[in-house]
Amino acid sequence: MVREHAVLEVKLAETEAFENAFATAIAIISASPGCRNVRLEHCVEQANRYLLLVEWDSLEAHTQGFRGSPAYEEWRARLHHFYEPMPTVEHYEAVLSSQAAS
Amino acid sequence: MVREHAVLEVKLAETEAFENAFATAIAIISASPGCRNVRLEHCVEQANRYLLLVEWDSLEAHTQGFRGSPAYEEWRARLHHFYEPMPTVEHYEAVLSSQAAS
Repeated sequence: MVREHAVLEVKLAETEAFENAFATAIAIISASPGCRNVRLEHCVEQANRYLLLVEWDSLEAHTQGFRGSPAYEEWRARLHHFYEPMPTVEHYEAVLSSQAAS
Repeated sequence: MVREHAVLEVKLAETEAFENAFATAIAIISASPGCRNVRLEHCVEQANRYLLLVEWDSLEAHTQGFRGSPAYEEWRARLHHFYEPMPTVEHYEAVLSSQAAS
């Protein structure tokens, strides 16, 4: 499993519209082959900051599969205009987790 | 649930020592009341970058409970000297997740 990670800075006046757009766009990424789950979370300390976490079967499922698909153009069109600046997307692999981790 | 989130920049020559130190220090934070699970992940794109994700029952379980405890001093002593610069710790709350999310 590889985790896609991005901290999203959303234009201040558009957070509600962004959440509404994401609520429908999440189906696009979730349907992509190798996508295990998608989480959007909201920052307690910064009102226009969000965290996107997506679990993929592999790095390629995201970087080649999803990003190379027509679905990605739809995802971009629905969401990218909310971001300022554009987020940095990175990938993370597990090193350690506590015994209680699910 | 509140997720503690920090991107950790570890001194370049000390990543192996950091991982070894974390492997024992994880027991300290995991034992803190309200700590559900702890994950340390390694960045694919940047060799000395890590992601710390900790699920807490509440914000206060982390900010008051753990940080106000003697255990936190031990956690700091074991790990903070590896970071350069010191990480920004934030907290996130769920907004949306895909149906496949666990």
